[in-house]
Amino acid sequence: MDIATFLGIIIGFSLVIGAIIFGGASSVFINVPGMMIVIGGSFAATCINFPVGEILEAIKAAIKIFSSRKTTTNEVVNTMVHIAEISRREGLMALEDIKTKNPFLKKACLLIADNADSKIIRDTLRIEITSMQKRHAISQDVFKKMATYAPSLGMIGTLIGLVQMLSSLNDPSAIGPAMAVALLTTFYGTIMSALIFQPLAGKLKSRSLQENLHLEIIFEGAKSILENNNPRIVYDKLSSFVPPRERHYDR
Amino acid sequence: MDIATFLGIIIGFSLVIGAIIFGGASSVFINVPGMMIVIGGSFAATCINFPVGEILEAIKAAIKIFSSRKTTTNEVVNTMVHIAEISRREGLMALEDIKTKNPFLKKACLLIADNADSKIIRDTLRIEITSMQKRHAISQDVFKKMATYAPSLGMIGTLIGLVQMLSSLNDPSAIGPAMAVALLTTFYGTIMSALIFQPLAGKLKSRSLQENLHLEIIFEGAKSILENNNPRIVYDKLSSFVPPRERHYDR
Amino acid sequence: MDIATFLGIIIGFSLVIGAIIFGGASSVFINVPGMMIVIGGSFAATCINFPVGEILEAIKAAIKIFSSRKTTTNEVVNTMVHIAEISRREGLMALEDIKTKNPFLKKACLLIADNADSKIIRDTLRIEITSMQKRHAISQDVFKKMATYAPSLGMIGTLIGLVQMLSSLNDPSAIGPAMAVALLTTFYGTIMSALIFQPLAGKLKSRSLQENLHLEIIFEGAKSILENNNPRIVYDKLSSFVPPRERHYDR
Amino acid sequence: MDIATFLGIIIGFSLVIGAIIFGGASSVFINVPGMMIVIGGSFAATCINFPVGEILEAIKAAIKIFSSRKTTTNEVVNTMVHIAEISRREGLMALEDIKTKNPFLKKACLLIADNADSKIIRDTLRIEITSMQKRHAISQDVFKKMATYAPSLGMIGTLIGLVQMLSSLNDPSAIGPAMAVALLTTFYGTIMSALIFQPLAGKLKSRSLQENLHLEIIFEGAKSILENNNPRIVYDKLSSFVPPRERHYDR
Amino acid sequence: MDIATFLGIIIGFSLVIGAIIFGGASSVFINVPGMMIVIGGSFAATCINFPVGEILEAIKAAIKIFSSRKTTTNEVVNTMVHIAEISRREGLMALEDIKTKNPFLKKACLLIADNADSKIIRDTLRIEITSMQKRHAISQDVFKKMATYAPSLGMIGTLIGLVQMLSSLNDPSAIGPAMAVALLTTFYGTIMSALIFQPLAGKLKSRSLQENLHLEIIFEGAKSILENNNPRIVYDKLSSFVPPRERHYDR
Repeated sequence: MDIATFLGIIIGFSLVIGAIIFGGASSVFINVPGMMIVIGGSFAATCINFPVGEILEAIKAAIKIFSSRKTTTNEVVNTMVHIAEISRREGLMALEDIKTKNPFLKKACLLIADNADSKIIRDTLRIEITSMQKRHAISQDVFKKMATYAPSLGMIGTLIGLVQMLSSLNDPSAIGPAMAVALLTTFYGTIMSALIFQPLAGKLKSRSLQENLHLEIIFEGAKSILENNNPRIVYDKLSSFVPPRERHYDR
Repeated sequence: MDIATFLGIIIGFSLVIGAIIFGGASSVFINVPGMMIVIGGSFAATCINFPVGEILEAIKAAIKIFSSRKTTTNEVVNTMVHIAEISRREGLMALEDIKTKNPFLKKACLLIADNADSKIIRDTLRIEITSMQKRHAISQDVFKKMATYAPSLGMIGTLIGLVQMLSSLNDPSAIGPAMAVALLTTFYGTIMSALIFQPLAGKLKSRSLQENLHLEIIFEGAKSILENNNPRIVYDKLSSFVPPRERHYDR
Repeated sequence: MDIATFLGIIIGFSLVIGAIIFGGASSVFINVPGMMIVIGGSFAATCINFPVGEILEAIKAAIKIFSSRKTTTNEVVNTMVHIAEISRREGLMALEDIKTKNPFLKKACLLIADNADSKIIRDTLRIEITSMQKRHAISQDVFKKMATYAPSLGMIGTLIGLVQMLSSLNDPSAIGPAMAVALLTTFYGTIMSALIFQPLAGKLKSRSLQENLHLEIIFEGAKSILENNNPRIVYDKLSSFVPPRERHYDR
Repeated sequence: MDIATFLGIIIGFSLVIGAIIFGGASSVFINVPGMMIVIGGSFAATCINFPVGEILEAIKAAIKIFSSRKTTTNEVVNTMVHIAEISRREGLMALEDIKTKNPFLKKACLLIADNADSKIIRDTLRIEITSMQKRHAISQDVFKKMATYAPSLGMIGTLIGLVQMLSSLNDPSAIGPAMAVALLTTFYGTIMSALIFQPLAGKLKSRSLQENLHLEIIFEGAKSILENNNPRIVYDKLSSFVPPRERHYDR
Repeated sequence: MDIATFLGIIIGFSLVIGAIIFGGASSVFINVPGMMIVIGGSFAATCINFPVGEILEAIKAAIKIFSSRKTTTNEVVNTMVHIAEISRREGLMALEDIKTKNPFLKKACLLIADNADSKIIRDTLRIEITSMQKRHAISQDVFKKMATYAPSLGMIGTLIGLVQMLSSLNDPSAIGPAMAVALLTTFYGTIMSALIFQPLAGKLKSRSLQENLHLEIIFEGAKSILENNNPRIVYDKLSSFVPPRERHYDR
């Protein structure tokens, strides 16, 4: 459970709702047709913009954010150094029996144990990394585009309200409430963009950078193992990926 | 038929039209001169911006969106592995008889069967890929620029309306309706940008990324075949392009 | 004569002028001091931003837009294949007599005929291409910056008008017309940006991409000729630059 | 103590507070719920956008700005030339005893003294540099995003105030003060963005570029030492990183 | 003296001041506290954003703009061809006596005359070029950021004025003049951004591109001299950097 994301959403919305209740007249802020046009319209624009599969992928990725990240960068480094020691002691074939939940590391070990050509191993792992990056970039893009469409739809809703109000200015006392309602869709659109879509796109980017870093470490580690580098050299090299303060080697 | 694009447009416009009808006074929202200035003006600016051929190409590409994509990434991988098996069993010359509707794959097979120099094959296929990418980028750019011009023209229409209204403020009761009409062009421009041009540019980008991915797989596959790699290695390498969950090999 | 650019400007301005006349009171829209501040101010900012030589270069490039493009991409390919045939039949020295209006192609032929080192030929032609790209990018940038300055100057004019109006609110009936006049500079700035400067910058980019593509084809063709490739291989390679539908070889 | 950053903040806020006091009615500008929604909301959005660790890292980096930078670029060059002299005179092993507070330089010296393979040294140091760049980029990104969220939350606060005011327009004399309060959150958001978050992100970037330059000099110096270049050549090469006026060699 | 920059500033401000005087009531446009908040505030934000040294560097670079550029691109080419002739006739050692005011060319000549390794010469000159580019980019960035801060501070001043006016709406006749004053800071900020900071950033970029081009020509020329290319080949290669119309060789 990633507490920060959860707390951020709770605190953000509490502050907004608090400000609304504090100012009284809070029922004015609920407007179902306005919500429909902003939420539904943003969703519709997103459906035109992306294939359905990519939207579902992005939503799954966003849900996965709330499950905590388990592995630290330093642990990945230690794992790779450990594997380098095994390969030095028992030979490359021993990598076949490495147990790991990381499918990329598994693939790297199997390719090495298979005695494949080192250029093929490098090419194959590089393709895995760039393909994952591209898929992640699309998921971030889905939320970035949602963060663009929500305020646009909010503005469309406000323009509809303004045109309707202005075209029938019979009762001056109705102007204020009508404008209040018209502004609501802009309010909805801005909140959805600034408190949900934009920050989620950002978190997906953070997660992707982290995962990508781990893959790069495994990739560099695999290259070192293939070149039969000494485990201490492997540690010196891979620990360079870790911020100095967090580096430590657990035997 | 790509249902999502179609449904997205239907739902988006239904919500907008629903909100208009729900608010009454819906006839106000139809203003033919306003529509002409936004649609015609955006089209005029696009005609200055791009050669006619590129605009037609973009429109054709947008229409092709509504026809469903047929090939999955995994199928392309399987096709290439299949071809690698044939080339291993029967020699590179056998590729001349490969039947395929993909003109890029056809060209790759013919070049290989022709016994061309491997550097020339790589260069030729690489030019095919980057040329296609450049042509696709122009089509996306046409819609991105339309998405920029539509709100600008909407604002021009609104400014014309405001100047006319303000310069003849004799009848106060006419101010409201005149402003309503002036705002309509901004409304048209925003809708066209947010519900049509922007998402279509996005979908063209998705399609292009997908097609480019397939070309990259064929390119990597062709390279592997030229290097006479074992079909299992070809599969290991090319399946790296596919998201892990979707990988499977159909014999 | 590039009809599209011409028609685009005619249609765009006709629609705007039509909307103005249709709304009556069209004389309000002419305000000489306002035009001076927007046009003169944008020009002044452009003069600070760019050396005079680059501004003149951009204007010349914009004027050249209205003269039609003569050579298609496929023709350039055919020319190169033709030259490859000559060089195969008669030797590299024969390229000295190639007649062409394209100065880049002329230079390539002379360098090859001169029997220069292939690395020097590649470097020299590459410098020609990137230097041209850089000069073209500056011309596009001149118009992009103009498209930014025009609305800013329009806003400055509007602020001047608003401050003057607000600081002397004696006669309420004068407010409307004064605001109308204040808005005019924003109107001028937006039109100049959206119907002239932005689309012209776009067209310069299209032209530049096209010319650059032709130079790349000549460059690749020259490399093939130096490597003494068979004309059919040269055609296979160079035709990859052309969209599949437009490829055909005229003997 | 970095005086400029400190003075910039003091002067910026003094001018704003001065303008407020000069205009009288300064108590109006303090609005606790408004501050809460802008500051708290921006912080909440940042918490959703980034992992907690990265936010803390960014804040630490921002605090470190106020401590003055100690080493000039020219000093780093001189240090490296000095080390090159030692290595020439006493051999690569002597680098083990180099005393330095720079952990990157320490690591470079140890790797060289260890007699490691030159490719491994280059790879390891390159990973150190790019990893540091990536961590710095994230810290800058935290402040850039804060600079985006603050005005958005300001606008959300203003919209809440406007909707509340408009929906209960009973007392016309209350309209002015209510709008004043509504505008305050936009005011807070703009100030936080323009006088704190944006410039701090900029300063972090300056610092990062400076630190990166020093690392590049150490990296190039280490390469020269490995290639056993003459100290004068090392100086000629490394001093190229320094602006001409600041170059001088202290023996 | 670069006339264009000077004239641009004169004309731009003349037009703005002309429009102000033409509209009467010109004394309203002078508001010292408003100017202080926009100019002082932008400067304060810039001081937080950049180290003092980089701001001074940018100001110096901006002042140097007004001194005319002396060397044309073609002259640089001719100089390099001349040096190539000398080196061919008298040997590389003769380059030691080349007299030039360009410190980069001087360094290149000395390195060549020193008989340094060609890889070291290339690396050293490349570092000089990229270091200069980075320093120039920072100076441009200072003005770009100023162009961003000025309108933000203008908006902050306007918000202060609006809040003060709205919170004390006792005298309706004071509303107009108070709003006029409030708008002035936005006016100042927009003018400073559009007529000073943005175009100066642009001119710095033009200058930097020009200087960089000259350095590239010297760099390519030095490489050719090291490879002992024939002066005619050097001319053919280097003249490719010059626009075709401006190429000519002065013996």
